[in-house]
Order: sequence, then structure tokens, then C-alpha cells
Amino acid sequence: MSYLGASSKAIDQIEKVFEAFKRRTIDRVFFVACGGSSALMYPCKYFIDREAKTITSDLYNSNEFIHRNPQTLGPNSLVILCSHKGKTPETTEAAKFARSKGALTVSLMFVETSPLAEESDYIVNYSWVPAGGDDPHPEIANYAILYRLCMGLLYIKEGNPKYTKLISSLEHLGEACRKARAQFAEKAKLYAAENKNEKIIYTMASGANYGIAYSFAICMLMEMQWIHSHAIHAGEFFHGPFEVLDKDVPFILLLGLDETRPIEERALKFLQQYGEKLLILDAKQLDLAGMDDEMKGYLAPIVLNFVLRLYAVALAEARNHPLETRRYMFKVPY
Amino acid sequence: MSYLGASSKAIDQIEKVFEAFKRRTIDRVFFVACGGSSALMYPCKYFIDREAKTITSDLYNSNEFIHRNPQTLGPNSLVILCSHKGKTPETTEAAKFARSKGALTVSLMFVETSPLAEESDYIVNYSWVPAGGDDPHPEIANYAILYRLCMGLLYIKEGNPKYTKLISSLEHLGEACRKARAQFAEKAKLYAAENKNEKIIYTMASGANYGIAYSFAICMLMEMQWIHSHAIHAGEFFHGPFEVLDKDVPFILLLGLDETRPIEERALKFLQQYGEKLLILDAKQLDLAGMDDEMKGYLAPIVLNFVLRLYAVALAEARNHPLETRRYMFKVPY
Repeated sequence: MSYLGASSKAIDQIEKVFEAFKRRTIDRVFFVACGGSSALMYPCKYFIDREAKTITSDLYNSNEFIHRNPQTLGPNSLVILCSHKGKTPETTEAAKFARSKGALTVSLMFVETSPLAEESDYIVNYSWVPAGGDDPHPEIANYAILYRLCMGLLYIKEGNPKYTKLISSLEHLGEACRKARAQFAEKAKLYAAENKNEKIIYTMASGANYGIAYSFAICMLMEMQWIHSHAIHAGEFFHGPFEVLDKDVPFILLLGLDETRPIEERALKFLQQYGEKLLILDAKQLDLAGMDDEMKGYLAPIVLNFVLRLYAVALAEARNHPLETRRYMFKVPY
Repeated sequence: MSYLGASSKAIDQIEKVFEAFKRRTIDRVFFVACGGSSALMYPCKYFIDREAKTITSDLYNSNEFIHRNPQTLGPNSLVILCSHKGKTPETTEAAKFARSKGALTVSLMFVETSPLAEESDYIVNYSWVPAGGDDPHPEIANYAILYRLCMGLLYIKEGNPKYTKLISSLEHLGEACRKARAQFAEKAKLYAAENKNEKIIYTMASGANYGIAYSFAICMLMEMQWIHSHAIHAGEFFHGPFEVLDKDVPFILLLGLDETRPIEERALKFLQQYGEKLLILDAKQLDLAGMDDEMKGYLAPIVLNFVLRLYAVALAEARNHPLETRRYMFKVPY
């Protein structure tokens, strides 16, 4: 298997995981993590759902996974876990639980040693920089590693050709993010200045982008800014949630390039008619030059996520509420 | 197959579906609907996840289902759909789409004829009364029909014994709801009086109860009361959302009887320590006499949902905002 360029520890770690894929029957993938690490995995579930012929998948919060105890979890299962510092107790427990059922466990993390690493069959260390920064290696950052693992899985098991397109497209991810910064950095500051006093901001998306909307809602807005929020699925919007929309209710809508874009476009039309405090981030405005056309729908969420983090940094500055501020997390027992 | 009592049109319709189950290989179940009808299906996904050895499942908003176009959707798939009046265009399209892939389609609805019925292989008509009312036939209301279908499926395909326990337990559902009304009707009015001016109320649950929390958030609070809300998964709460909690932020927490209860209990402890505006609905307070112990975790959400609807009716009265009031739904194009 060729990696077309990138060479690093992460790539070596992934190669070992691929060898394990080759030795095993895999008919189930479980994506297991908490909060922002769980949100990372939604695009991969979208990919597996759309592309896998013989493999089904589910995505659970780590604690839900353990207590739900899926009957189909077993030796033919691949469990992909993630925890930034490898110290999330529920995720470490989930890895232990999955191994006790005979599943193959692969855990992503930023650190090299951790409790989660000890309970996992394989680990992959991803590149990471704080929100707003330029990652020198976005091709091995968390979202990219997850796609490598899942597209690699389907390449190995089903001969799915997306994997090689992913590898060549990831070479252009850093450039796409740098261009997006140039496009959106000032806009983010203007948005932050205008919206710094909002008490609630909803996010909305569908398909490959929903996890990005979820991540921004629960991590950036709720956790890091104490702004009320939640991610509304753009298709569900019309079956209840849209009744809260009014000119004074802020919404952030993501428009992606994947097959569910018509759902997001329908939400856009409605938002523009009845709302006013809108932030519309449309992946069509991004320059994704060099990426394979078949990859753009899958990779757009990564660039949209990069853009959203510029908005989070700008909001934190305008509100004088640093992204690192917490009242409970890592401060009190829970 | 014995139905131990209940006899009605719905039971006859279910019998026909069971005959179809016997004639088919089924290895996938797709739960497909929008909004409140989608929320109904979460407990059944919980059941399938926990119990099915050979069948996996996914749950999608109807429009997401069509555009996501799951690769595993095919002749061995069962697609369960629901639309109260059978007129939700996305769900009708989803049934048509599923049939075009060769899947078996079974649609629940209140009405006897509808566009959705025309696009479905089988329909089942459920009993229904408006929020706050006593359904004379809760054993054939929407949640119960869904459990009958899914537990019946696993009985037929895998010899799973839960089905007969379900049927005998459903006989006691009406009584459980009547007792719950006596317990909670006055409490609901007090809660409504105290909370009628709240602008945002979060809901929270896990496992079999999450769909109930989702339904109350998007249908009762957002759609019918224009109160900001969203359902937080009790396990995800600690990984971001809990940072918005403060003494002035209202939360509704459901505690069920299923295997994920420890997750909800952890959230309870935290809410009680740092929150004040709390509504805790604990299924342990319910009288579920007559129900099989193995069924209580699955059936508690139905009674909790009944109780939540008493709270919705009370809120509507206290706020002088009838549950039927809409500004967009069925009023403007969307």
C-alpha cells in the first residue's frame, strides 16, 4: 500500500493497524468516544454508511457503549476510540470492555503513553495544534487519521478505491486551510463583534457535516464560551425545532459538498426568510484545489471545522472569555 | 404466535407483517422518520442493539436516509417508517426509495389511507390521543407497536424470548399511566407555574430514554412552546455541555430502568450539586405492577413520555400558549 508522500510515526502506526485488518474478519465498526472526540467520528460513519457493502457501523458515547453492551460486539468488530490525552476514564473503560469481547481496538490520541493506550491493541498518535493555529501536518491530524483508517479498511476489505484518492487529496488540506484563513479571519472578527452578547447560538448541518456542527455547539460554544447551544440536524429542523426561529435567534448553518447538501440548502432558504442573525459557512466558497472531486464532500467538513475554530477564537477574544476557561471540567469531581 | 389478549385491526396488521418477516431474510433494520415520529424509534434501536445477534440497525431522519443512501440498504433490509397522518413528504419519499432498493417497508400511521401508505408494503395503524389524554389502547399506541414489531422480529428470526414478555407486560401499560397521572398531575402544574417564564430548558437522558428526551425537547418545548431546548445525552454532558449549567439554567433529567441508568444517575448527582432549576423524573417512582422485570427498562420510557406530556399540557396552560400554536408548521411553505 502506497502512502504517496507523507511519512511519519503516525503513518507507521497506521501501517501496523492495516496489517491487523488484513489478518481479521471485520463486519462491524464501533466508533466510541466522548464529546469532541466523538464528534470527530461522525464523518467516518457517514463514509462507512455510504460506501461499505459488508461492514456496518455504530457511533456511541463511551459510557453508553459499555452500558448498552451491543450484542454484535465481538471478535469480528473493530472498535475505534479517541481521547486527546488518553485519560478519559469512560473511553479507557470502553477499550477494556471491547477487548474483553474479543474486538480489535484502535485508539487515537495526541500523547504517546496513557491509560487508554495501555488498554488498546493499537494506537495512532495524531498531529494537533490549538484552535486557530495552522497545523503543519493536517494530513495526520485527527479527522485525517480517522479517514485513513476507515477508507483503508474498505480498501483492504472491499477493494474500495477511495483510499488512494484520500491520500492524494490530503496533501492539499494544509493549503486549503491556509486559504480559508485568509478568506475568513476578518469575517470571524466581525461576526464575533456583532454576536458577542448572544446568550444562545444554534448550529445546524447534515450528513458529513453534522459532527462538526455538534462539536462547535458542545465544545466551542457550551464548554468553552458558556453560550447555550445545540446542533440541530438540518432535516429535523422542519419537524419541530424551526418553530423557535425568529429574527433575534442566532443560527450557524454549515453547507457541505456531500450528498446531503440539498437538506442544508432547504434549511438555508428557510433561515434566510425568517431569521436574521445568521452565519452561513458554505463549503462552495472554499478553495479545495488539488483535491479529488470524489473526496471534496468528505474533506469539506475538516476545512469547515478549521474555519469554525477561527470563529471560536474570535468570539473568545471579543467576549474576553478565553477558550481555556472552565468552571467544572478538570476542576471539580464528576 | 399468540397475542395473549389484545385483538384489533392493528394486531391483524402486525400479524401480516410477521408473515412477511417469516418469508424474508432480514439482516438490517432502518428506522426512518422525522421529528417526533423519529424520536419514537430510539427505544427500538436500543432493543435491537442490546438483543439482536444477526441484525444491525440504524436510525435516520427521512431526508438524511435518502441522501445518505446507505450501501447496505437492500432486499435483506427492513425499513420501519412512521408519519402520524402519513403525509410527511420526506418519509413518503423514503418509503419509495427503500422499496426501489428491494427493502421491506412497514409504515406506522394514525390514519388508514395516506400517501405514505401507498408507498409502503405494509402499514400498521396505531391508537393515539392528544397529549395529556388517557389512551384506551396504549398496548397498540405508537411506542407499543414499534416494540411489537421489533421484539416480534427477533422472536421470529432468533427465537428471542422478550416478545411474549412484552405482550403480557403491555396489558399493564394503561394502568401504569393512570397511576402516573395521579402521581404527577399536580406536580406538573406546580412545575409549570414555577417555570412558565423560562426561555430555555434542556432535557437529558441516556439509553432507552434518550428518544423521549429528544421528543420533549424538539416537539413539546421548541415546536409547541417556542422554548429553546435540546436533548443532551447524559454521557456526553460531562464532555462539554455541563459547562453551561448554573443555578439559573433549567434541566429536565429522566432516570430510566434500563442498563444505562448509571449514566443518568451520574448526571443527577452533578445536576443536584450545581443546578437548582431541576425536574427529575425517575422511573423508580412509577408503579409498573404486572410488568415483567425484564420489560421494565424498555417500557419505562413510554410511561415517562406520558408523564412528560402532562408537564407539556401544564406548561401550555400556565404560559397561555396552546400546544397547537404554530408560526410556520403547516402555515408557510418550507
